[in-house]
Amino acid sequence: MTSATASICTIGDEILIGQITDTNSSAIARELGKAGIRVREMVSVGDEKDEIAGTLDRELRRSDIVIVTGGLGPTRDDVTKQVIYELSGSREYVINGEQLEIIRRILSSRGLDLLEINRLQASVPANCDIIPNRLGTAPITVTRFPETSCGHKAVLYSLPGVPYEALGAMPDVIADIRDSFRLSDIVHRTVMTYGIAESALSEKIEAWENALPGNVRLAYLPDPLKGVALRLSVYEDGDSAAAPGSGKGAEEIIDSRTASLREILGDAIYSDCGETLPEVIGKLLLASGKTVSTAESCTGGLMASLLTSVPGASAWFLGSVVSYAVSVKEKVLGVPEKIVDKYGVVSPECVAAMAEGVRRLTGSDYSVATSGIAGPGGGTESTPVGLVWVGVSSASGTETMRFNFRNDRLRNIERFAASALDALRRFIMNRD
Amino acid sequence: MTSATASICTIGDEILIGQITDTNSSAIARELGKAGIRVREMVSVGDEKDEIAGTLDRELRRSDIVIVTGGLGPTRDDVTKQVIYELSGSREYVINGEQLEIIRRILSSRGLDLLEINRLQASVPANCDIIPNRLGTAPITVTRFPETSCGHKAVLYSLPGVPYEALGAMPDVIADIRDSFRLSDIVHRTVMTYGIAESALSEKIEAWENALPGNVRLAYLPDPLKGVALRLSVYEDGDSAAAPGSGKGAEEIIDSRTASLREILGDAIYSDCGETLPEVIGKLLLASGKTVSTAESCTGGLMASLLTSVPGASAWFLGSVVSYAVSVKEKVLGVPEKIVDKYGVVSPECVAAMAEGVRRLTGSDYSVATSGIAGPGGGTESTPVGLVWVGVSSASGTETMRFNFRNDRLRNIERFAASALDALRRFIMNRD
Repeated sequence: MTSATASICTIGDEILIGQITDTNSSAIARELGKAGIRVREMVSVGDEKDEIAGTLDRELRRSDIVIVTGGLGPTRDDVTKQVIYELSGSREYVINGEQLEIIRRILSSRGLDLLEINRLQASVPANCDIIPNRLGTAPITVTRFPETSCGHKAVLYSLPGVPYEALGAMPDVIADIRDSFRLSDIVHRTVMTYGIAESALSEKIEAWENALPGNVRLAYLPDPLKGVALRLSVYEDGDSAAAPGSGKGAEEIIDSRTASLREILGDAIYSDCGETLPEVIGKLLLASGKTVSTAESCTGGLMASLLTSVPGASAWFLGSVVSYAVSVKEKVLGVPEKIVDKYGVVSPECVAAMAEGVRRLTGSDYSVATSGIAGPGGGTESTPVGLVWVGVSSASGTETMRFNFRNDRLRNIERFAASALDALRRFIMNRD
Repeated sequence: MTSATASICTIGDEILIGQITDTNSSAIARELGKAGIRVREMVSVGDEKDEIAGTLDRELRRSDIVIVTGGLGPTRDDVTKQVIYELSGSREYVINGEQLEIIRRILSSRGLDLLEINRLQASVPANCDIIPNRLGTAPITVTRFPETSCGHKAVLYSLPGVPYEALGAMPDVIADIRDSFRLSDIVHRTVMTYGIAESALSEKIEAWENALPGNVRLAYLPDPLKGVALRLSVYEDGDSAAAPGSGKGAEEIIDSRTASLREILGDAIYSDCGETLPEVIGKLLLASGKTVSTAESCTGGLMASLLTSVPGASAWFLGSVVSYAVSVKEKVLGVPEKIVDKYGVVSPECVAAMAEGVRRLTGSDYSVATSGIAGPGGGTESTPVGLVWVGVSSASGTETMRFNFRNDRLRNIERFAASALDALRRFIMNRD
């Protein structure tokens, strides 16, 4: 299948020493992907002229489109513009009037005068086209290379490093790319699963995966809090199996493949549009007008924190009691002392009492409770590190279940919380 | 000073389409930097054999050390291992017994049988050395290239893509690098500050920074949950100012510079050995035999979650009430209805009552409470999005304070929680 390819280059020593994480690349990649442009490579190099020049030259030979961010500020360690001056074969810098006007406006809105260092920001290599940067001072330069120079037609876009300015320029960049290249469409869908490990999942859906059409790609994306996401990507274009002539569009293909996947995986699938467990729980509760609360021992507030990360959670989340101490379990949640004495706090009896206690206390329709051993210490033979008991409760009854993991403390806490939230989701869906 | 150079390669279509942001590269870069290894380039490519092979070959010619992460899972879209098989000139795969044992243990702890697909995870190219992965199933392969093949001695390390496993392997990787290359010794110290923004901090310590000896480097590492960390690195090496002959060791230099930094920043410094706020709070409480509890509205359990991330937190953390609903504030924490009616829930009066309420309820010595507007909705002119009230309380009294931020929901919640924990730290240190 044909489609334009792109490389994304980010410039800055602060990236290479790990001081900041490069977020421009993924944000730009999402915009390119939506436009059907396939990113082949992302690369980060430091503020050194030779490194930047060598990298851009290399990437221009590999990809149709190269987008570079960073290295355009007024300080002396920003050298991208000099590199572009040379790559474009320019013989002089010219002041871009439109950008100079924007710079003047930005400065005057901050009560500042235009200094020489500011004016130089509007100075660009003469051989480049310019896309004005309305959100900042450094304009976007567009350098067009004929087939004779890179072996194929190529365009280099140089964007500011400030994420908000770089992203703000992307619509204009995409429009310029559309003028230069014929683009194919890509449609993505992310199906979220929980409760089946990646390797078991891969065996379970092997036949389904083998039967995918040639223009559909599948990726497994495991995450401790989200389970395994399955991303389907359909490439629509002239020489693919999903060509217009075949009578099936990308959306239709994805719909039918997702439906057959659902027949195999059932309610292990919790979303077919990339939502998180807390978002799905919120939607279920919002739809039924019900509420939830949590009672947490080993998860220490993480379930509540995850649920309240969803905007608007106050419509369905009432609160949580983190009962780390036994006394809080007994006094606040009303877990009977005799349950603690007889079964211990890591027991089905205790999580059931915790779940019922927090529901009573907050008046919520549903509740979920956890008690387990996150480690590193505290494990015994009968309750080892990595064991968690989960309780879910509603007016129609209380259920308990256990899960075993074997990770470090933080990873165990995450797995405990995600497993308990998934148990809550299934309980809400199946029980009431 | 001489130093080895490194390239970091991350593999995965999910990175290239922008579905996930690559955080492995910056985390690995920080570890390499601490060992005195300079990262020249970071690069991300997709799950295609030719792309991976071409990129690794290129980077092995550029750098002494190449670290690749990802593409090692059991599913067929992970192809890095095949590439390494070919690059290493291996003629067969062999099962690594040590890794197979780890895989067996991990599976059995989850109650799972060893499937063929799991066993294959322990299969490695015969020409590679192996570092076992104790945190997951895919081992780390080490491929050593003689000068004749890359123009210089080079070593390729292939790590899993799961960040926790990749980072967990780094100490062993660094140890292996030390065996192969002569690295200069670096001594680091990370001074943690909270409450001063990076730009203000940089102005405040400008003179101190300018007076640092030539062999000392300073890095600013801002983090929403930790504040701004200042990492001092002293390079000990024949041609540096801190050579043994100069009479001052690296530790001594760092001690004196940290002491003078403390004179400028005072109790904005909360640790001079890289500890987190929850760890510091835990140590203070452990030392005095006191306990703490939290009452959380807008932070939704994040403070409790952060505190309980510290191993052994049960010795000093009793519990939390996440009072998202007003009814929970009133009924569980005992916030008087008239306070809610008169001042609203985002008010000093309300957080004071919440802090006192949770202390009464759990019997803790200290407590901290939050109420604010995380957004995106819910703001008003008097209580805008980003405003949080914090209350801290002990038997000796209750204090309240406000903080203003202006970020998105998740970032605001993090800032709220960190500010409140810092307020708790100062309260414990200064008050009692």
